[in-house]
Amino acid sequence: MSYTPPPPDPNAPPVRINLLSDTQTRPTPAMREAMARAEVGDEQTGDDPTTNALNERVAALLGKEAAVFLPSGTMCNVTATLATCRPGDEIIAHRTAHILSREGGTHAALGGFQITPLDGDGGQFSLAAFRAALHPRSRYEPPQTMVSVEQTANIGGGTIWPQATLDAIAAAGKAAGLATHMDGARLMNAVVATGIVAREMVAGWDSAWIDFSKGLGAPVGASLAGSRAFIDEVWRWKQRLGGSMRQSGVIAAACNYALDHHVERLAEDHANARALAAGLAQLAGVEVQEPQTNLVFFRPDGAGIPGPEMVSRLRARGVMLAMMDGRIRACTHLDVSRTMIDETLDLVREILRKA
Amino acid sequence: MSYTPPPPDPNAPPVRINLLSDTQTRPTPAMREAMARAEVGDEQTGDDPTTNALNERVAALLGKEAAVFLPSGTMCNVTATLATCRPGDEIIAHRTAHILSREGGTHAALGGFQITPLDGDGGQFSLAAFRAALHPRSRYEPPQTMVSVEQTANIGGGTIWPQATLDAIAAAGKAAGLATHMDGARLMNAVVATGIVAREMVAGWDSAWIDFSKGLGAPVGASLAGSRAFIDEVWRWKQRLGGSMRQSGVIAAACNYALDHHVERLAEDHANARALAAGLAQLAGVEVQEPQTNLVFFRPDGAGIPGPEMVSRLRARGVMLAMMDGRIRACTHLDVSRTMIDETLDLVREILRKA
Amino acid sequence: MSYTPPPPDPNAPPVRINLLSDTQTRPTPAMREAMARAEVGDEQTGDDPTTNALNERVAALLGKEAAVFLPSGTMCNVTATLATCRPGDEIIAHRTAHILSREGGTHAALGGFQITPLDGDGGQFSLAAFRAALHPRSRYEPPQTMVSVEQTANIGGGTIWPQATLDAIAAAGKAAGLATHMDGARLMNAVVATGIVAREMVAGWDSAWIDFSKGLGAPVGASLAGSRAFIDEVWRWKQRLGGSMRQSGVIAAACNYALDHHVERLAEDHANARALAAGLAQLAGVEVQEPQTNLVFFRPDGAGIPGPEMVSRLRARGVMLAMMDGRIRACTHLDVSRTMIDETLDLVREILRKA
Amino acid sequence: MSYTPPPPDPNAPPVRINLLSDTQTRPTPAMREAMARAEVGDEQTGDDPTTNALNERVAALLGKEAAVFLPSGTMCNVTATLATCRPGDEIIAHRTAHILSREGGTHAALGGFQITPLDGDGGQFSLAAFRAALHPRSRYEPPQTMVSVEQTANIGGGTIWPQATLDAIAAAGKAAGLATHMDGARLMNAVVATGIVAREMVAGWDSAWIDFSKGLGAPVGASLAGSRAFIDEVWRWKQRLGGSMRQSGVIAAACNYALDHHVERLAEDHANARALAAGLAQLAGVEVQEPQTNLVFFRPDGAGIPGPEMVSRLRARGVMLAMMDGRIRACTHLDVSRTMIDETLDLVREILRKA
Repeated sequence: MSYTPPPPDPNAPPVRINLLSDTQTRPTPAMREAMARAEVGDEQTGDDPTTNALNERVAALLGKEAAVFLPSGTMCNVTATLATCRPGDEIIAHRTAHILSREGGTHAALGGFQITPLDGDGGQFSLAAFRAALHPRSRYEPPQTMVSVEQTANIGGGTIWPQATLDAIAAAGKAAGLATHMDGARLMNAVVATGIVAREMVAGWDSAWIDFSKGLGAPVGASLAGSRAFIDEVWRWKQRLGGSMRQSGVIAAACNYALDHHVERLAEDHANARALAAGLAQLAGVEVQEPQTNLVFFRPDGAGIPGPEMVSRLRARGVMLAMMDGRIRACTHLDVSRTMIDETLDLVREILRKA
Repeated sequence: MSYTPPPPDPNAPPVRINLLSDTQTRPTPAMREAMARAEVGDEQTGDDPTTNALNERVAALLGKEAAVFLPSGTMCNVTATLATCRPGDEIIAHRTAHILSREGGTHAALGGFQITPLDGDGGQFSLAAFRAALHPRSRYEPPQTMVSVEQTANIGGGTIWPQATLDAIAAAGKAAGLATHMDGARLMNAVVATGIVAREMVAGWDSAWIDFSKGLGAPVGASLAGSRAFIDEVWRWKQRLGGSMRQSGVIAAACNYALDHHVERLAEDHANARALAAGLAQLAGVEVQEPQTNLVFFRPDGAGIPGPEMVSRLRARGVMLAMMDGRIRACTHLDVSRTMIDETLDLVREILRKA
Repeated sequence: MSYTPPPPDPNAPPVRINLLSDTQTRPTPAMREAMARAEVGDEQTGDDPTTNALNERVAALLGKEAAVFLPSGTMCNVTATLATCRPGDEIIAHRTAHILSREGGTHAALGGFQITPLDGDGGQFSLAAFRAALHPRSRYEPPQTMVSVEQTANIGGGTIWPQATLDAIAAAGKAAGLATHMDGARLMNAVVATGIVAREMVAGWDSAWIDFSKGLGAPVGASLAGSRAFIDEVWRWKQRLGGSMRQSGVIAAACNYALDHHVERLAEDHANARALAAGLAQLAGVEVQEPQTNLVFFRPDGAGIPGPEMVSRLRARGVMLAMMDGRIRACTHLDVSRTMIDETLDLVREILRKA
Repeated sequence: MSYTPPPPDPNAPPVRINLLSDTQTRPTPAMREAMARAEVGDEQTGDDPTTNALNERVAALLGKEAAVFLPSGTMCNVTATLATCRPGDEIIAHRTAHILSREGGTHAALGGFQITPLDGDGGQFSLAAFRAALHPRSRYEPPQTMVSVEQTANIGGGTIWPQATLDAIAAAGKAAGLATHMDGARLMNAVVATGIVAREMVAGWDSAWIDFSKGLGAPVGASLAGSRAFIDEVWRWKQRLGGSMRQSGVIAAACNYALDHHVERLAEDHANARALAAGLAQLAGVEVQEPQTNLVFFRPDGAGIPGPEMVSRLRARGVMLAMMDGRIRACTHLDVSRTMIDETLDLVREILRKA
């Protein structure tokens, strides 16, 4: 899935409004203060109290037996598949899923897994599509051992998998002997947007994780949760991948802070996304996907200006967005205010007038 | 791609008409005689004259610098990708290609390669679809290093990739820095059906192979051809996979015999396939794909009998076929005569009458 | 382990006496006759009666539930480790074992396994050395999942692992939770030399195989035996590696013939090896390892001529041997007679006289 | 290599003197302050100024074109081998090297590499041993593509590879076509102890890294340096492994601080190690390896008390050490003062008196 930020331009002004990604959030002063005060020890010997507290907290949040802190969401996906599948196994996911489209072929490279891409609107596949992809065991086809969903579906438009779909696919997967894995890079956005508590949302999924370095605003880290046996195996792979850290409490403290202070406020990002989409929808020729969370995908081509051109012109005015999968993606987050949304809309209107 | 022969039935009569696959051909007395007389030596030390002769012959046939004999067509595909790609690389192929649908996930399992499936009718993708699948180099996406086609496209209906398409995709692939690989399991069927000589058909493809154990009627073996450097690297993987044999001349002799005696006669198999298809097409409610080579795909459902039921009933009368990808596949070959085709048609008609 | 045949020499006479390897044996007329008459079918669909018969016979011979025919002994080792271990697992073997020293790094390349080399005389490690290599489970060390022995130990001098050692290591391995695997490339040599029946010799070993293309004199093939569940998993990897054949009965017939006619006669090869060693031992300055089976390792350096020089001069007289691991290896087999041994000794004496 | 901390004991007092490992250092107040003030951005888009500065600084320090920040030293080793070698390649290292003995089989698991262990005193192999391990290219042996050394050699006793040996092995490796890699987990200890500047010490090595979370006292991170092309490839694997972070400046700031303030002071750790060793050497029956840097290996068995017993008793008195490879290892670092060394010696003497 091609993802293209604006081309580097030495003459471009500094970025004033960063709608590129929620990964770009910077730690707030209070979060930095929490990091500076964090009690630490050696994570590998189980002696980092801040990381231990975070692990317990995430396990409880997601309703699993255990959790482990990792340097990134990608490593959550990688260790989850490595801990679960064997080389030559098949993983079922949506065609646009991060594990297939944005992780550099890592699940094949490191694990030897074949990911079967399913189609479906909004980055989601249906129960019927999932069932149709199942096949009987055979020497000629890979054993199917995992089904994975991404909540929310980023490239699908930040869409929220309906709870009934999640539950039905998980049940069908387990009935067929598959492990169920949820990439929860933006799970908390779905939780806040729906009001469904996290542990219920992921109840059918053997493994699930949340990312702290996206909308939650922490600088580094993600936490993967599952059964104790699974997490033990994940630890082995964390070690092998070089994801074991030492005094990780310095960054885990920011994650604990984010859980305390940055969850409920995701609702603001969602409101900002809706405001941006509503504004764009009023512009003739601009196609906008109705946002369910903090991602707004739109296409200005009908208004006489191609997406990449719009991205470049906005960048020249200090607003950063990216092309993704043929559309422009705008992402709201902690460092984006309603005023910035309004200003962005003004600039888009101005650019379209001149187009 | 599910492939389902009729369920085993202890009461079923012996198979009299075997339309299951051209892999089921048995060596003729003359072929056996050639094997019994074969001059042999140790293949690994380069001392098997019969295998050496076959290698030279296949290299010349396919217009490549060198060739190597392997126990199977699957090993041709596996060694070709292992010799060419690195873990985490991406291979582009049709959704129904043998390397993706029928080799048990081996390219992920053994090589760490991610195969991107393209859509397209008849088991073939278009130049436009191929171009659309290319992406710029990025840390987030696997390097694209190979495009692979299967000539003929088995699950696509035994269709023949048009020469212009083959040439255009190969050229576009090379322009994008990709290696080009042809799975030639039934390449000689395409050669005989089109009259295009093999070395021209595969001219744009860095590596290509032919299978002797399908329509050519040999019991074991396939030969992979390419540049000398490529074949040297293939030899390393042949050794690692355990595909290096010793006095392989005993089986290579059958392949040499097949090249002498069983190529031109593939035209008979194609004629038989057309006869079968023509007969089936006259039956109300039976959908038949027009055969281009030796494979006939049809669907009797419209005539009131589901495919698997038809397969079972034919098996009960001594005729063997299989379900593949939701349709019935009939395969003509060396051991299938026109009389058998006529008898099969009679039986199908009889079964439909009783349906 | 470096293995060096004499350098290619266009002026060298044909090889009259081939002591290079028992892999170089050529099928006898009677064996060829058996191949030519073999009843065949498609091995992959379970329909090759000759291969099926061989599988049952090897399973019974080795006292295991099932067996599978493969193109080579290397593929027996590769499928056995792939079916048993997971990436990152540790396999314990002797430093000179074929799986470590002669298979091109395949167990790391294809399976991701780390082989820990143990030392010990004659290609064998002791129970104490094995026990010392075991370590407790830890995140920092690979899980130990297999111990492998090679019977006979080729580079160790064709030595026979004593039954008590085999039994003790197997028992200790199982007690530690390891699978036990025997590379039986020359197992039948050990069986004939000791009089211990094969199924007792391998009783402690979960998987074991015999090679037909070495002393048994067949052109191609080896058979791997173990539990039914293990063999099912091996079949999956046989398919993935491209080791599944079609009418494999044509080569399996030679293996059946070898089991009927070429087992007991291995005693002749052993007698010839002893005769060669005895003759060499009488030559001043020549160090000879007492042969236990059909391999004779010697070092003529003390007699004033380096090994590679001796190999070259013998080759110039029509006798083929190789350097292996710093010594000359002579291998007796089906195509080596006592007269050839005597002639070889005459030539060695003559070369030493001129040195 | 077994590494065994004292068994967990709920009744044990808090650790007052932590000689377990220099990985256990905690960030100082000033280091925490530097982290809290760090300017940050998104590392993956090249926008984290603190991480960028660290990368440039490490590249200059090690005299390489470029460097990249990673979550751990293990990931430096893993990405270096993945970026350099292909599956089935052979890496040459000492038997006790971290990449072989302490990384859970990761180089086989993730990369498919076979590590050949060399012997030699003090965790070092000689030029002669290295040369003897080289073999000609062959289909039967893995291509040898990398030689790796660990400076200092941890399990070897924290020994410093002599510059002449480093240079000679690097030259011989390159002459044989191998890439040269240095695991510099404690490279700065060697630099401070010898007075040789880092870029000269690593001049012969294509890739080298330093660890900030050991003696340098930072909580998390290591930096790998090499050519620009190499680092580009490392970045691809950093992404695949999930080692790409976001606002990594928060931890990179501690590493920058460590380079400013914690390098020269390693001399104190070395002096403390010598003081500890000297004290231990005066105790009858205690064998001590003369320390070259900050690691002291000793064996109290001759004084009537086995190592694990000594470790347990010291732990019961608030002093933490570990067993490693059959000996006790004491590690001095930032959080260990001379007073603590004296107290430790007092406790050891007391324990021995009671033994």
